[in-house]
Amino acid sequence: MTASQAFIAACTDVLGAPHVLTSAVDTEPYRVDWRKRYRGNACAVLLPSDAQQVAALVRLAREYRVAIVPQGGNTGLAGGATPDQSGAQAVISLKRLNRIRGIDPHNNTITVEAGVVLAEIQARAESAQRLFPLSLAAEGSCTIGGNLSTNAGGTGVLRYGNTRELCLGLEVVTPQGEIWDGLRGLRKDNTGYDLRDLFIGAEGTLGIITAAVMKLHPAPVAKVTALAGLASPHAALDFLSLAQHHAGALLTGFELMSDFSMRLVGRHFPQLRYPFGEPHSQTVLLELSDSESEAHARALFERLMEEALEKGIVEDAVVAESLAQSQAFWDLREHIPLAQAEEGLNIKHDIAVPISSIGRFIDETDAIIAKAVPGVRMVTFGHLGDGNLHYNVQAPEGADQKQFLDAYQTPVNALVYDQVHRHRGSISAEHGLGQLKVDEAMHYKSPVEVRLMQAIKAALDPDNLMNPGKVVRASTAPGEEKIA
Amino acid sequence: MTASQAFIAACTDVLGAPHVLTSAVDTEPYRVDWRKRYRGNACAVLLPSDAQQVAALVRLAREYRVAIVPQGGNTGLAGGATPDQSGAQAVISLKRLNRIRGIDPHNNTITVEAGVVLAEIQARAESAQRLFPLSLAAEGSCTIGGNLSTNAGGTGVLRYGNTRELCLGLEVVTPQGEIWDGLRGLRKDNTGYDLRDLFIGAEGTLGIITAAVMKLHPAPVAKVTALAGLASPHAALDFLSLAQHHAGALLTGFELMSDFSMRLVGRHFPQLRYPFGEPHSQTVLLELSDSESEAHARALFERLMEEALEKGIVEDAVVAESLAQSQAFWDLREHIPLAQAEEGLNIKHDIAVPISSIGRFIDETDAIIAKAVPGVRMVTFGHLGDGNLHYNVQAPEGADQKQFLDAYQTPVNALVYDQVHRHRGSISAEHGLGQLKVDEAMHYKSPVEVRLMQAIKAALDPDNLMNPGKVVRASTAPGEEKIA
Repeated sequence: MTASQAFIAACTDVLGAPHVLTSAVDTEPYRVDWRKRYRGNACAVLLPSDAQQVAALVRLAREYRVAIVPQGGNTGLAGGATPDQSGAQAVISLKRLNRIRGIDPHNNTITVEAGVVLAEIQARAESAQRLFPLSLAAEGSCTIGGNLSTNAGGTGVLRYGNTRELCLGLEVVTPQGEIWDGLRGLRKDNTGYDLRDLFIGAEGTLGIITAAVMKLHPAPVAKVTALAGLASPHAALDFLSLAQHHAGALLTGFELMSDFSMRLVGRHFPQLRYPFGEPHSQTVLLELSDSESEAHARALFERLMEEALEKGIVEDAVVAESLAQSQAFWDLREHIPLAQAEEGLNIKHDIAVPISSIGRFIDETDAIIAKAVPGVRMVTFGHLGDGNLHYNVQAPEGADQKQFLDAYQTPVNALVYDQVHRHRGSISAEHGLGQLKVDEAMHYKSPVEVRLMQAIKAALDPDNLMNPGKVVRASTAPGEEKIA
Repeated sequence: MTASQAFIAACTDVLGAPHVLTSAVDTEPYRVDWRKRYRGNACAVLLPSDAQQVAALVRLAREYRVAIVPQGGNTGLAGGATPDQSGAQAVISLKRLNRIRGIDPHNNTITVEAGVVLAEIQARAESAQRLFPLSLAAEGSCTIGGNLSTNAGGTGVLRYGNTRELCLGLEVVTPQGEIWDGLRGLRKDNTGYDLRDLFIGAEGTLGIITAAVMKLHPAPVAKVTALAGLASPHAALDFLSLAQHHAGALLTGFELMSDFSMRLVGRHFPQLRYPFGEPHSQTVLLELSDSESEAHARALFERLMEEALEKGIVEDAVVAESLAQSQAFWDLREHIPLAQAEEGLNIKHDIAVPISSIGRFIDETDAIIAKAVPGVRMVTFGHLGDGNLHYNVQAPEGADQKQFLDAYQTPVNALVYDQVHRHRGSISAEHGLGQLKVDEAMHYKSPVEVRLMQAIKAALDPDNLMNPGKVVRASTAPGEEKIA
């Protein structure tokens, strides 16, 4: 019996045979990432049902020196949950840890296990007249453990923050196979190091999140959206300031969409109507979430738009008259990625810069890329209120798409990330590093920061068995070069 | 020349003689904490003027094996900035790092050095029509570096969060004497471990914060307060839910004050008028911050109070008619600690429990303490919206106060903290651990959590030279027992 077989046998003792998958067919869905960019191998896929079982598996992994890849809904966009090619790693899927342990409306908290699907948390909160504001495209299949491990963003960040800001406490299985019970539902707790935030966004490289206490908010009475047409990203920044001045915390969405983004949607989804008679350089979608009434939100929008038109900040504006029209506005925004896919292959970037730099960033970077790739078409859209752009580069009209990608992906990434770095931005605003961007992160981060990350990794996971190769290059990993 | 003298000479080379204090008289203000509970000694007080100088001092401290105690405004309540008795430690005061490096209204950020006084940041934000919402009693002399290092709370937490939630980026001098430039002004950045939050609240035990990028908010147009009288803490919880439902993010204050707290204020500050004709078991102060108008806030309050009275949740209510009356309501709240001091010595607790547990916590703990200390008087007040109570224990009427404190401080602390622990609460909600509560923290935290903290401390500060003895007992410190 090999060491790997002995490990699998020991895991089977813990979980029972039905929860240890080893055949290529059974493990396939766990070995390929959602975008099908990464295809790995695994000695086993392990399906524990509670934190005690997860802890037992981690202790076995230590004993048998098997590296572990934790996985949630497997909807990540950076390959963070996909094992490597070696076949030596084991995937631990958290999807059977799917209980909502409790909801506490007075404390505005919900306690959930890692494998609970995001949409279920939203629904459970709603049934208690509360809002769980995390919302993103994969919400029907992503799990809260994955959201926490990647610190997922989405459309509610402007008002409610990232997943990090929505979490009050965690339960984590440490690399030593112990359970840390940090499931506190407190708004204030200054008793030592912030372990919670260290595990959040660590993509399973420092331990495995098994449960969490998440914050709830009062459910708004009404949501109203509006669209505005503007002459430039710079005008959009002025508009954001004005909107925040008028609406304060009621402003829950501020999404930017470039002219070409809107044209792409029009081309591939002609049933979606752009509400303005003429195109605008930029279109902004705004959302207000109101605890009073729809009428109150609409009146607020009217006052805002009046002032913005008067000051020449916006060129045109329309406030949704109905829920259906609100949805139609959101449809325009949400169909941009789909329209892009219809148009063909493209080079995607999920970047953030300080909000005040967005206009300059777009101007400069557009010019740099246009020079490097003549005829290129920029699909720029995103969460302007958070400084987060999906800054995507589409092949020139009629170009061979495969050839375009092969020739330009690497140099275009370098151009964009250099610009991001120059503006003190982030090369991964909401998707994490996974295996996709770990080398870029090591390149752009300062040596001091890389060493701090490596020191923490080595302190908590000295054997480098927790999702190795993701997020940070371990300084002590055998076969990996030490980064100076 | 002793090693200590050599260290001081080398520091003098870096800073110049005027910025190295060594005489007992010169160093006195830096060696005694604000409440005068701790009086330490120091081989020197060092006054660098920028991060490079701080880094140079830390490198010298490593070379000469001198432990360092960083200090901001020296207004901490847990002795975290006071050196020990040995005379071997050096205080590094950050107060000359007092530049506001810049404000970026479009990004809603301000970049400040560690030694900038909190009130100055508030004022600079206001001059740009922005709000820096951190607000606490010591704001005229505390510094942002200290606020960050203790993750200070205050009165704005309900809506805006603790200092942690107001920080986007840090500059830190590491225990190796390197400068980590993490001064990012980004709302979204998922590129690795959350170093920022690790340094926040670490009280200088993992490095020295030298600068920070802090979040600003749109300035509200109006603030209006109201008072309500209620029959119990349980009713106050129902009232909080109702207020959040009505006001959403406009609700920026929700403070609880027990009947005895109000009586104490009335006794010692008779000029402060309690606005209700008869006493109430609990009084709640509410604050709305409105981005529309004062009239809008007042109308919202009227609707809320009407429903709360109708449902029998509150017994009486009054909305402030003027700024002066708003201030008078806040005066009642802010004079509780002063009235307590007038009344005599007392045992203070800064605790948090889940908001939903507050009623039960108070009922149970009041009963336990009444049994243990007959005639004791409970001064219970605090930030109910955050689950944070100042749960203070006043000597029985006419008791010898010194005797009371000597006899009861230790057992009462144990009773209260045991209760906090039972309710999964925090023994230090907003003041930090410092040297005051480090032993209690090590006692109440799980061994797993203590080991995680020790592993991080040992990884970043292997020589235990950064504020040793505060926050965590280092597992490797010479002469200190390893905690199992």
